Amino acid sequence: MKDFVHCVPTRFVFGRGAELKAGEQIRDFGGTKALILYGGGSAVRSGLLERVQKALSDAGVEYVCLGGVQPNPRDTLVYRGIELARREGVDFILAVGGGSVIDTGKAVAHGVCYDGDFWDLWCGKAKSRAALPVGVVLTMSAAGSESSNSCVITREATKTKRGLRSELNRPRFAIMNPELPMTLPPYQIASGATDILAHIMERYFTCETEVDLTDRLCEGAMTAVIRAARIAVKHPDCYDAQAQLMWASTIAHNDTLGVGRVQDFGSHQIEHELSALYDVAHGAGLAVVFPAWMRYHMHRNVARFAQFAVRVYGCEMNFERPEETALRGIEAHEAFLREIGMPLTLKELGARSEDIPALAAGTKKTNPDGTTGGVFHMTAQDIEAILRLADR
Amino acid sequence: MKDFVHCVPTRFVFGRGAELKAGEQIRDFGGTKALILYGGGSAVRSGLLERVQKALSDAGVEYVCLGGVQPNPRDTLVYRGIELARREGVDFILAVGGGSVIDTGKAVAHGVCYDGDFWDLWCGKAKSRAALPVGVVLTMSAAGSESSNSCVITREATKTKRGLRSELNRPRFAIMNPELPMTLPPYQIASGATDILAHIMERYFTCETEVDLTDRLCEGAMTAVIRAARIAVKHPDCYDAQAQLMWASTIAHNDTLGVGRVQDFGSHQIEHELSALYDVAHGAGLAVVFPAWMRYHMHRNVARFAQFAVRVYGCEMNFERPEETALRGIEAHEAFLREIGMPLTLKELGARSEDIPALAAGTKKTNPDGTTGGVFHMTAQDIEAILRLADR
Repeated sequence: MKDFVHCVPTRFVFGRGAELKAGEQIRDFGGTKALILYGGGSAVRSGLLERVQKALSDAGVEYVCLGGVQPNPRDTLVYRGIELARREGVDFILAVGGGSVIDTGKAVAHGVCYDGDFWDLWCGKAKSRAALPVGVVLTMSAAGSESSNSCVITREATKTKRGLRSELNRPRFAIMNPELPMTLPPYQIASGATDILAHIMERYFTCETEVDLTDRLCEGAMTAVIRAARIAVKHPDCYDAQAQLMWASTIAHNDTLGVGRVQDFGSHQIEHELSALYDVAHGAGLAVVFPAWMRYHMHRNVARFAQFAVRVYGCEMNFERPEETALRGIEAHEAFLREIGMPLTLKELGARSEDIPALAAGTKKTNPDGTTGGVFHMTAQDIEAILRLADR
Repeated sequence: MKDFVHCVPTRFVFGRGAELKAGEQIRDFGGTKALILYGGGSAVRSGLLERVQKALSDAGVEYVCLGGVQPNPRDTLVYRGIELARREGVDFILAVGGGSVIDTGKAVAHGVCYDGDFWDLWCGKAKSRAALPVGVVLTMSAAGSESSNSCVITREATKTKRGLRSELNRPRFAIMNPELPMTLPPYQIASGATDILAHIMERYFTCETEVDLTDRLCEGAMTAVIRAARIAVKHPDCYDAQAQLMWASTIAHNDTLGVGRVQDFGSHQIEHELSALYDVAHGAGLAVVFPAWMRYHMHRNVARFAQFAVRVYGCEMNFERPEETALRGIEAHEAFLREIGMPLTLKELGARSEDIPALAAGTKKTNPDGTTGGVFHMTAQDIEAILRLADR
């Protein structure tokens, strides 16, 4: 295992009706006036926003509201949030939604405490030193932003999607009621499950061998997520399936399953370009990118891809031709994604073949040598080849 | 999944030489003068204590030291620690050791902030409302006290062993250098691994069915611990085996693997009586109690004990006679414990048959109806029967 520092101070309040505790949680963390952020109308229509507002009032916490957060959240709303938060003197951000709302909340929290343009912090021009406290009422099991240190925002004018990793990004509390995602369309539940799996897989496909403990934890979580996703997509009102997806979304991305490992996140970087350009659901984009990424890289560590096939999808090990086993695992993963209604090709996402070079060139370079990906380093040519595999 | 609140704010600093960061960690959490607690002479002889002291001095943190913590830590040293901490005006407790030292540190931390006799808090006479901050330099992978909410102390005069669960018990930081346990005798490494497994098993053997995610996480962790323990007992200098045991000790008992489940902890209560009376290593006591507890209870949930056998020990499932499979799993577990040098009988612990009724009567009653155990409720008669199974 590699050296690491790991700290997830987020308090998880999990269970039916947990959103009614939002006010007392904010009070507990010293908040007196909150900016409630939310997305589209569903939080209003379902009565969730009203329940949360009442919870705050009951606890004596003042609030102002800002709705309209879109998937692949934009800088434009972040600027409005910062302005509103400053004008109203709020001391706490409450995100009521999924990853997009939470990430908007995190960006506002940094922005309020930063004198310049908040995008400076996202494009690496400046380092954030403070942020308002953030709390979450989670409505979708997917991004894991409810306790992760990451936050991804899209610059609308340039369609640039960038993430900021910072320990300041960890929310103070996450209220998790598995009943809330029951009203989501199956496609969104499936996209969320795909995102959860991708977060685990980014940590799982490594070149290290002596990481048996985290391997086993990742495999166990993936096996359970696949099972729960199959159930939740067909029976969204199954509490236990939703509960498992919700808790899995959290541990998949707060590094509980990833400590001590080199992690990749190359697929995520490729997908960020896709969803920035075509505004597709992040999970759906990952459903297209990840299997192509696996096919492209499997030969660089056949044993690991075969291990995935055997332990997660129950494939039989072909000791003479392990690459066959590895391939069976990728096929099984694709079949699962198809089964839950996910796209597998660029065309299904509405992406154009002629955009591939620009997508490859635009993908963020995460390594000093200009390549992307922590484990399997990729040049723009590699990324182009991966996207061509998905261009069916 | 059951409703839960879960929060592990501990900062884990993991890797070679991590103890050199003890001073800066204390400073980070506002400490200016620490009470360094440690156990026997090994921390002195190995030079660890000196390295830690230098780390504190380099960071400008003052300190006083108190050594002599014994396994199954006693109230007597807790009283001395409280008195010393008050006299010297320390504002931080640094435990350099394993579970016994950490638990002593936690008890001192409560005791300093409580006006009466600290044992009031352990025997339920009063509720703790504050504790000094505690940091840890971990030297043994076992108890998981480095981030758990529990703390177990033995009242020397009455040989009463009692635990206090409190969120105040979570250390601020845990410094985890997997090189430190390399100098332990194999018996202690094995005892530690047994304790880790027991912490997972207390969470695993439940009567719920819809806990697939946490089941899979528990199974993955157990599989990895069994493998790492086999290596570490034979090759204590294997960094990766020690690293996996160390991280497993933490997640086994900070509830990462246990959220949303009814947990048992009946075996732990029985063992507390054993180690209070005979002063045996906690892990060794669990090696004797747990298999007997499994044999006694397996008929109450054969499917789960069979699942354990199949998924953790690779036993073949006998669908016609699942109780055969369950039994094979218990035998495999006993064989593993024997392989790493653990005792399996009361005799090997030095326990006497004639003490069994008193041990059963003395075991803490954890349920309002006077029974013990969260999942499989046990009367004193049940406990006596379990101990008789181990009396070979």
